[in-house]
Amino acid sequence: MLNHSSAPQTAHWGPPYLLYLGQASDELAIKTARGLAYWRPEWCIGQLQRPGCKATLGLRELNVVEAKAAGANTMVVGMANAGGVMDPQTITDVIAALDAGLHVAAGLHNKLRENPEIVAAAQRNGRELFDARDPQPGIPVGTGRRRAGKRLLTVGTDCSTGKMYTTLALEREMRQRGLKADFRGTGQTGILVANCGVPIDSVVADFISGAAEWISPARFDGGWDLIEGQGSLFHPSYAGVSLGLLHGAQPDALVLTHEPGRPHMRGLPDHPIPGLRECLDANLKAARLTNPGVRAVGVSLNTSGMSADEARALCAKVAAELELPCADPVTMGVESIVDHLLACFAN
Amino acid sequence: MLNHSSAPQTAHWGPPYLLYLGQASDELAIKTARGLAYWRPEWCIGQLQRPGCKATLGLRELNVVEAKAAGANTMVVGMANAGGVMDPQTITDVIAALDAGLHVAAGLHNKLRENPEIVAAAQRNGRELFDARDPQPGIPVGTGRRRAGKRLLTVGTDCSTGKMYTTLALEREMRQRGLKADFRGTGQTGILVANCGVPIDSVVADFISGAAEWISPARFDGGWDLIEGQGSLFHPSYAGVSLGLLHGAQPDALVLTHEPGRPHMRGLPDHPIPGLRECLDANLKAARLTNPGVRAVGVSLNTSGMSADEARALCAKVAAELELPCADPVTMGVESIVDHLLACFAN
Repeated sequence: MLNHSSAPQTAHWGPPYLLYLGQASDELAIKTARGLAYWRPEWCIGQLQRPGCKATLGLRELNVVEAKAAGANTMVVGMANAGGVMDPQTITDVIAALDAGLHVAAGLHNKLRENPEIVAAAQRNGRELFDARDPQPGIPVGTGRRRAGKRLLTVGTDCSTGKMYTTLALEREMRQRGLKADFRGTGQTGILVANCGVPIDSVVADFISGAAEWISPARFDGGWDLIEGQGSLFHPSYAGVSLGLLHGAQPDALVLTHEPGRPHMRGLPDHPIPGLRECLDANLKAARLTNPGVRAVGVSLNTSGMSADEARALCAKVAAELELPCADPVTMGVESIVDHLLACFAN
Repeated sequence: MLNHSSAPQTAHWGPPYLLYLGQASDELAIKTARGLAYWRPEWCIGQLQRPGCKATLGLRELNVVEAKAAGANTMVVGMANAGGVMDPQTITDVIAALDAGLHVAAGLHNKLRENPEIVAAAQRNGRELFDARDPQPGIPVGTGRRRAGKRLLTVGTDCSTGKMYTTLALEREMRQRGLKADFRGTGQTGILVANCGVPIDSVVADFISGAAEWISPARFDGGWDLIEGQGSLFHPSYAGVSLGLLHGAQPDALVLTHEPGRPHMRGLPDHPIPGLRECLDANLKAARLTNPGVRAVGVSLNTSGMSADEARALCAKVAAELELPCADPVTMGVESIVDHLLACFAN
C-alpha cells in the first residue's frame, strides 16, 4: 500500500496482481494492464490470455489457480472490450478468479458490481470487487482550507497529453533520489497503479474539489503528493473537472504537459489548442485561489511524433520561452524538472 | 410547459400545483414553495399545511382530494425538513396525493423514488414522481459546438447572491415587453419553477457542460434562454460546477450578481469575496472559450442589508466603475439591465 497513514483506504484488494488480458484485440485494449506492468512491475506476477488474444505484456502465463498458488492477491481486468462491455469469457474468468480466492479489480465502463453472477461469486467467496471508475461513497464537499504537506499537480493544454505518465515519472525519479513521493491517481489506470484514488471525472459535480482534497490529505512527513491531472482548463467538455481538481489539489507546484502538433482539442475540431504560456498562466491564476504560493516547475512534452533532434530543439525553445525546464519524460527523463522542483522548494 | 420544442422533456407532471407545506418549521423551510408561488402564481392553486406548520403562502388551504377536484395536476413537496429527511407525515401525505390521482414533485435531498411505499403508490396509480435533485439519465458530454439562439447566464461573486431571482426577474421584464424569454433552471427550486431543467451540481463531473448544453439547446425563434447560474468561479468548493456551466451555457450575455458586505465566501472564513471587476473579467475570459462574442450586460446587487439611499448610491458607484447598468432587482427592478441587453444585441 502506497497510502500514507491519514488516507482513508482500508481495502483488501491490492497487489500482487494477475493481469487479465482475455481476448484483447490490440495493444490499445490492454492500456491499463500495460500501465500497471510498466509502473509497478514488482506487483505483477503474471498475465492471463485467452485464445485470440492479440496483445502481451511478456509476463509468465498463469491461470487463476496457478496465480493464487504463486501468491497473487487480486486479478486485474486490465483490458477493455469494445464499448467497455464485458464479454461472456471475461465474466466466466472473473467468477473463476473469485472461486480461486482472488479479489478482482477492473477499470471497465461496465462495472463488476453490476453483474449479479459476479457479485454472487464474490459474496460466496468473501472476496472484494473493485471498480476503478466507481467513486467511493462519503466523499465530502471541498473546504479550500490550507493543509500541511507539499503537492504537485500535472495540468495540460488538452486531454491525453501525458499527465499520468509524467506524474509517475516524477515519482520514480524522486524515489530514486531517496525522496518521499507518492503518486495519487485520478483516472482508472492511475487508481490501479496507486492502489487507491478517486476517478475524479465520475464524482458528482459538487464534490470534485472535495475528492481532490480527499486523495491528498494533510501530510506531515516532508514528502510530496504527486497528483495525476485530468482534462484541461481549455477543454469545453471537461474544464469544470480540471478546475475543481486544481482547487482541491491545492498544489504548490504545477507541471504543464503538452503534445506538440496536435491540430485541435481532442474530439473538438472547432477548438484550437491554447498556447503554452496562456495555458500555464490560466492554471497558475486559478490555482492561487487555494494556494497563493503555487509555482510552475516544468514542462513535459510528448514528442513521439518528431525526430530526436527536432524534439531536443523544441524542448530548448520552450524552456527558453517559459524559463522552465522542459523535457519529454519518455525519451529524456524528468531529472531537470525534479532538479528545478527541489531548487524551488529548498529548505 | 415553457419548454421550446427541441427540448427533451416529455413528462406528465407539471402545473397546476398544490404546494405542500406540511409541518414546516419556519419561512426558510418553504423557500422552494415560495419561489413557485412568487414566480408562477398562475400555476399554484392551493397550499396544504399540517398542524404545527409555522409558515404560509397565503393560498387557499386544500386537501389532496379537493386539490385534484380543483384541477391540480401535481403536488409539490415545497418544504425542507431538517437534514432533508422526509418525516412520516409527509410520506403519508405524498401517498395520499398519489392515491388521489396527483403526480408528486419534490426538491428534497431524500428522494421520493428511494421510498418503496411512495414508489408503490405511484405505480399503482400510474402517477409520476419527480425528484428535482435527480439528474435525468442520458445527459451527453458537452461538445462546445456553437449553436443557434441567444443565451444569458447569471454569474456571481459567491453562492447565494441572487442568481435565480435575477434570472427570473429578467424573464418577467422581457416577457412584459413582449419578448420571447425562457428561464432555464439549474437548481431544485429553479427546476420546479421552470418545469424542466437539470440540477447541475448533481450531475457526474464529466457531464457538467453537457448538462448546460442540454437545458438550453439550439433555438431558432429569436428568443432568449435565461440560464440560472450556480456557485462562483471564486468558490473553492464549487468553481468546477460554475466553469462547466459557463462553458456549456455558451452565453452571449452575462449578468453579475453580488451581495455587498458579505464578510467572506459562503462557509469559508479563509476566503475573501473577489472584487466585482476581477470576478466579471474572469467569467468573461472563461466564457470566451465557447463564445468569443460574450458581453457583460449588467450587475445585480442584493442590497437588503442597507438603506434605500445607500443602495442607490452603491448601485450608481458600481455602474460607473464597471460601465454597466446596476440595480437591486427586488427594490429597483431590472429594466435598466434589459434596456442595455437589448441595446447590445439590437438587430
